[in-house]
Amino acid sequence: MAHINLPAEIPGIGAAFTFRPETAKPMRELAHILLFEAGANSGLSSRDRELIASYVSSRNRCYFCQTSHGAAAAHHSGGSTELVAAVCEDPETARISPKLKSLLAIAAHVQGDAKTVTTEMVERARAEEATDLELHDTVLIAAAFCMYNRYVDGLATWQPRNEDMYQSMGRHLAENGYVQAVLTSR
Amino acid sequence: MAHINLPAEIPGIGAAFTFRPETAKPMRELAHILLFEAGANSGLSSRDRELIASYVSSRNRCYFCQTSHGAAAAHHSGGSTELVAAVCEDPETARISPKLKSLLAIAAHVQGDAKTVTTEMVERARAEEATDLELHDTVLIAAAFCMYNRYVDGLATWQPRNEDMYQSMGRHLAENGYVQAVLTSR
Repeated sequence: MAHINLPAEIPGIGAAFTFRPETAKPMRELAHILLFEAGANSGLSSRDRELIASYVSSRNRCYFCQTSHGAAAAHHSGGSTELVAAVCEDPETARISPKLKSLLAIAAHVQGDAKTVTTEMVERARAEEATDLELHDTVLIAAAFCMYNRYVDGLATWQPRNEDMYQSMGRHLAENGYVQAVLTSR
Repeated sequence: MAHINLPAEIPGIGAAFTFRPETAKPMRELAHILLFEAGANSGLSSRDRELIASYVSSRNRCYFCQTSHGAAAAHHSGGSTELVAAVCEDPETARISPKLKSLLAIAAHVQGDAKTVTTEMVERARAEEATDLELHDTVLIAAAFCMYNRYVDGLATWQPRNEDMYQSMGRHLAENGYVQAVLTSR
């Protein structure tokens, strides 16, 4: 049971968003820009951005966010459930570009202790043609999921083990982004 | 030097906000609601909310955020530099209400591993008359500063050791909130 009186039929972050629509609005907008909008307008695709989100969430052991953003990554072009699992297991051995590997290495350090991101890590990403915008967005996606994950887990939201629900949610997020509520229920 | 090409004359998160105004907007709005607007309309004042922000930032060892939000807390009614220092040192012995102590205990667990927030911690806060909204906002402030702190440190932003600058910034934030940019320069 959640720590506060959240709507019982809505899983994960959606219940917290319903409880407090004022803060939900900027939180949705931030995710929409970082994961959806910017994916269409930069060299870091929405699939790659969702992979960073799912990977950071896996490191924070946030089941709801890892699974829903993993499903979103799988529904974007070039994504698959197997790829998401491989990235969360070990980005260095997954079938992804050297650039994305270098960005996931930075994301891992932001998730742990952001002060440990080094010039060498950034230079590795630049050598793979990562731009300043892509470096910025990688750091911010990793940082933002340290917020979303803690919000979901710190309130003890309902995180059902229901693969179909996450697949449906992931498809919706991949197609529509984050500004509109994802409608799911028990 | 910052990891990406940020404006050199702007300290901390302001430089990152200038680099990427699209994401700055919802990040400013979230801080404005949680720390400024809601402080006027709930039993958890802006001073208390800024104390939570500074305390979480101190636990993440983010100098810029700890110092700027500490200065904001000090400029709100009932705040002082000594109180901020005492809270960051140990909330349980600081001269604050039992309710705020119970909420800071929850914030510390959200900062570390949000799954470790227990029903007992929440019940302690409820016994001190914390409402669901105050519990929610405590969890979200703590979670959000795990984002802001990582954003500031993960980009290696400029964090000058200049007490006067932070005092001026804190006064501005306490008086005007977060939607307008704080104008500071070298």
